[in-house]
Amino acid sequence: MDEYSKQEQGRGASVGAVHPQLAKFDTPFTTVSGAVLPQWELCFETYGRLNAERSNAVLVCHALSGSQHAAGVQHDNPNNVGWWDNIIGPGKPLDTDRFFIVSSNNLGGCHGSTGPTHPHPEDGKAYGSRFPVMTVEDWVHSQKKLAEQLGIDRFAAIVGGSLGGMQALRWAIDYPEAIGAAVIIAASARLTALNIAFNDIARSAIIGDANFYDGNFYQHNALPTSGLQVARMLGHVTYLTDFLMGKKFGRTTHANSDRNNSQAVQFEVESYLRYQGTKFSTRFDANTYLLMTRALDYFDPAADCNGDLVKALAPATAQFLLLSFSSDWRFPPEHSRHIVQALLAGNKNVSYLEIEADTGHDSFLLTNAQYHNAIATFMNHLTLDAPNKCNA
Amino acid sequence: MDEYSKQEQGRGASVGAVHPQLAKFDTPFTTVSGAVLPQWELCFETYGRLNAERSNAVLVCHALSGSQHAAGVQHDNPNNVGWWDNIIGPGKPLDTDRFFIVSSNNLGGCHGSTGPTHPHPEDGKAYGSRFPVMTVEDWVHSQKKLAEQLGIDRFAAIVGGSLGGMQALRWAIDYPEAIGAAVIIAASARLTALNIAFNDIARSAIIGDANFYDGNFYQHNALPTSGLQVARMLGHVTYLTDFLMGKKFGRTTHANSDRNNSQAVQFEVESYLRYQGTKFSTRFDANTYLLMTRALDYFDPAADCNGDLVKALAPATAQFLLLSFSSDWRFPPEHSRHIVQALLAGNKNVSYLEIEADTGHDSFLLTNAQYHNAIATFMNHLTLDAPNKCNA
Repeated sequence: MDEYSKQEQGRGASVGAVHPQLAKFDTPFTTVSGAVLPQWELCFETYGRLNAERSNAVLVCHALSGSQHAAGVQHDNPNNVGWWDNIIGPGKPLDTDRFFIVSSNNLGGCHGSTGPTHPHPEDGKAYGSRFPVMTVEDWVHSQKKLAEQLGIDRFAAIVGGSLGGMQALRWAIDYPEAIGAAVIIAASARLTALNIAFNDIARSAIIGDANFYDGNFYQHNALPTSGLQVARMLGHVTYLTDFLMGKKFGRTTHANSDRNNSQAVQFEVESYLRYQGTKFSTRFDANTYLLMTRALDYFDPAADCNGDLVKALAPATAQFLLLSFSSDWRFPPEHSRHIVQALLAGNKNVSYLEIEADTGHDSFLLTNAQYHNAIATFMNHLTLDAPNKCNA
Repeated sequence: MDEYSKQEQGRGASVGAVHPQLAKFDTPFTTVSGAVLPQWELCFETYGRLNAERSNAVLVCHALSGSQHAAGVQHDNPNNVGWWDNIIGPGKPLDTDRFFIVSSNNLGGCHGSTGPTHPHPEDGKAYGSRFPVMTVEDWVHSQKKLAEQLGIDRFAAIVGGSLGGMQALRWAIDYPEAIGAAVIIAASARLTALNIAFNDIARSAIIGDANFYDGNFYQHNALPTSGLQVARMLGHVTYLTDFLMGKKFGRTTHANSDRNNSQAVQFEVESYLRYQGTKFSTRFDANTYLLMTRALDYFDPAADCNGDLVKALAPATAQFLLLSFSSDWRFPPEHSRHIVQALLAGNKNVSYLEIEADTGHDSFLLTNAQYHNAIATFMNHLTLDAPNKCNA
């Protein structure tokens, strides 16, 4: 878990050691763009127990660099704590004493679900750049298939931050009967040009890396680590704030800085970012990074309705909770308010809270009492209707 | 000139065709860090005429990617318009009918002054990474030598935006007797961690480019174009604003976008940025980019006085004009106010104006009536004392 998470003590306990599971699908998956995956798999974890009525399931959707490992510790690596461990667990805002949490790695990901590193059925070589472009809709459709395989007709709630929140919003539109509530955190109904630009700088760093080989680096026994490092550094910086970085690093110089070398690390902030970037560059797949950022850029449910978000949200019946963070400048509060206003205009059931936090976009991953209380209170008040009752 | 400049019609006329000049120095230049350049040259341009009293000289200092070519058109390339052509010329805010403007390429630059692309005296091969690290102080010291060679004992004003403003501020501290006024635009007395972080992402992109060869790419007949492209894209984006990019590009898709290719350009904003980055990558030196960003990071005049900026500014006797732009988030108005407050606390002569503009940090390069009027008015009121009168 990131060190920022330690700044405030969260509530509840850990779900303990967890094992990833694999759901296999033999029916081909056809993407919105028409591409076909003949066979495909989703890697997922679950926390808590599905009740007899199958009414307490909650789907957690991950963001750009997330995975299915959202809570607890990896069974064979106790240092690998889930990315939302402060939210999910007994007595935590997503309370595993009450809810059965499902968390899957997105299709096209690099943590076990079918993705660019997996063998293409035709030649057995890694898909690489041949892996089809994914959209938020594709992920939602694939998660629906997973739910069916798990015997879940309806999720009590679908919860996500950032790109995960976009998935929760899309679920509410595409499968209104299958979602009781949507918790949409630090998300957006569509990115701005600036946000697309940041994503494209990251993509350009990856594509321009001599070790990327047009996305087919696997065959060259190479890794575009430099490009991924830069992409991660940029993500990291833009998910934080000037204030927080000032508080944490200021202008402190690095212990081994050499002022006569313009290539070497001089300030602590550089050392931290280069380290984070390097760590990321060997554990994340470059093609997955491209796919994830593309899905972010393309997400625009209103586009199907001539830009009318109210119309796009018309099918939704879920109860909504929208949350944003005051200092988030990549997915600023205006973006959440834009969704809230469209929901209100459509006479939907929606609550909204803008949380004061100086931790930027990353706030959705961090421990913050007001934020966690908002989710806990919302979740505690959900009625766990059995699906047949709801659809009656 | 950048197309943004065309949004508002500026005043005045062009200085016409200009020729760069070369000042050669045989006395070694010793940097603050103790490195020595045995011989060195500064490439510069001048606009207007030095008066008989030698009292009307104005030094213009350039920012990160600038050059000596600040005004008019290059004599052998009429498409190459100076980067501050909207400010400098007959009837313009820096009026060449009244002032004699000197604009030099910084030492370590790549537009004619001695820099990393030049031969090292020992082996005749390009300096490359062996070129010493430069600081704002070094540039100011080298510009003073240029002034001496031109017979200018005192500048009526020294003017600069961004990194150029830092040089004007340093001049006021280091050579108070040689500067009548300082016009410091969108600058800072020291960068924050976030700003250093952005610079280090750009540096990491360059250093990580396989064609950089630790800064000695000249010998390998290679150019780190990919790294420079990413550096430029990041600079470009952070010098603008979300609002302006939304207005200019929005979510317009590119004419030839292929949604099934995650590597290809999809949105207009990407096409624009990749094009700007590519253009920059073949015309700017990678080592110069590192040196320039390092000078930005290191600049911190208060550091010599235990962080006390008032004390650091104590020697200054110049008349100051500070300008900032409301939407500039890389060098936000707080940074200018910080300098203004220190100047006021030291009982200095200072004016300050925060200009409403939605064009971000790049505003200092753009045409804006309020901005240009502020400079014109300040310059028009300067008394052109002969140096001997001032020092009496």
